[in-house]
Amino acid sequence: MPVRQVQVYEKILKANDYVAQQNRQLFDRAKVTVVGLLGGPGSGKTSLLERTLEKLSGEGQKAAVLVGDLATARDAERLGRFEVEAVQLTTGGACHLEAQQVHEALQGMDLEDLDFLFIENVGNLVCPASYDLGEHARVVLLSVPEGDDKVAKYPSIVRRAQALVLNKVDLLGAMDFDEERVWNDARALNPDMRFLRLSCRTGEGLDAWLAYLDELRTGAASA
Amino acid sequence: MPVRQVQVYEKILKANDYVAQQNRQLFDRAKVTVVGLLGGPGSGKTSLLERTLEKLSGEGQKAAVLVGDLATARDAERLGRFEVEAVQLTTGGACHLEAQQVHEALQGMDLEDLDFLFIENVGNLVCPASYDLGEHARVVLLSVPEGDDKVAKYPSIVRRAQALVLNKVDLLGAMDFDEERVWNDARALNPDMRFLRLSCRTGEGLDAWLAYLDELRTGAASA
Repeated sequence: MPVRQVQVYEKILKANDYVAQQNRQLFDRAKVTVVGLLGGPGSGKTSLLERTLEKLSGEGQKAAVLVGDLATARDAERLGRFEVEAVQLTTGGACHLEAQQVHEALQGMDLEDLDFLFIENVGNLVCPASYDLGEHARVVLLSVPEGDDKVAKYPSIVRRAQALVLNKVDLLGAMDFDEERVWNDARALNPDMRFLRLSCRTGEGLDAWLAYLDELRTGAASA
Repeated sequence: MPVRQVQVYEKILKANDYVAQQNRQLFDRAKVTVVGLLGGPGSGKTSLLERTLEKLSGEGQKAAVLVGDLATARDAERLGRFEVEAVQLTTGGACHLEAQQVHEALQGMDLEDLDFLFIENVGNLVCPASYDLGEHARVVLLSVPEGDDKVAKYPSIVRRAQALVLNKVDLLGAMDFDEERVWNDARALNPDMRFLRLSCRTGEGLDAWLAYLDELRTGAASA
């Protein structure tokens, strides 16, 4: 009788990371580019998704969204009007999404049919940092009214992201905000990070954001 | 030999609540009024404390602050210039303060000498809601740029607070924000809550805030 071999991993993956890996395999197999969106309350995650879905649908790209929230389905309702699949993940008070919640939500979706899947996390600059969901890129959204000290004050989420997006740049004139400080703090924490600046209200910077998504898509497709 | 009686509580307090009770006893014995300040990143917690310390010191009141943060001591440095004791509680990545951290910080402080102690929590609208620190009043700070849907989206923190302060009202004209929606959502969750609106930048509403603190102080003193 042949000996049954059990592979021993040098690093025992935590349950969340294990499921995140399963998610990533599903995403890669379906050739869908998956972007996680993280940011504090009111940083503009849902607004950025609204603008993004509008633009992508204009280009004939298909997208879906998973939206994490404590209690309401308001964000999914806002996004549902773009005729994309918008799934609300209500955490019932929990402060972050976990890979398993995403994995369960994926069961009902036709991933093969999608170009992009966006996962909007709970509004929180702390806890979501520690939970890999299997996304190809993590994007942290900061907004000008939150103040120019937020990168230094919430370093773990910046360290673990691929891009930092500064939103609401149309308000730069109206407040005391040192933009250079944000980029310098971020560069010190995460030199390989991509930096983008935009305003969901005026549309400034959205083309560069779409170009970044396109880059991710090309990179993911050739991987 | 007399029987040693061990009181059995109907409800077993969690460790955090137990220590929070110890904190509250220390506060009451020292006749210091303790206010917990909670809010998302950039809602203006430190700015409100700056204005408050300035005003209180003008009235000859003594205050101290405990400031929770993930990594930096920037907030305590900002507040230290008001010649008040400002203690930074660095959580090392954790998303909220716990009663034990406060209890440890109290050991080095002369509480009897104080009129007010302010505890600024980590910038987070989710996790701090579940941890009683022993404060007499919890104040949730929301700011206009975060959007008018935040009360409905973060109900647990609103339910467990005594006051809701809407900050940055000077920006109301610059954005699409339905103030009535905020108050209606809050009233539905927590009818006994106090509502205040102010701008740390222009000073609007600060007098009413100071009057509220004075009320808390009188209430606490007569308790």
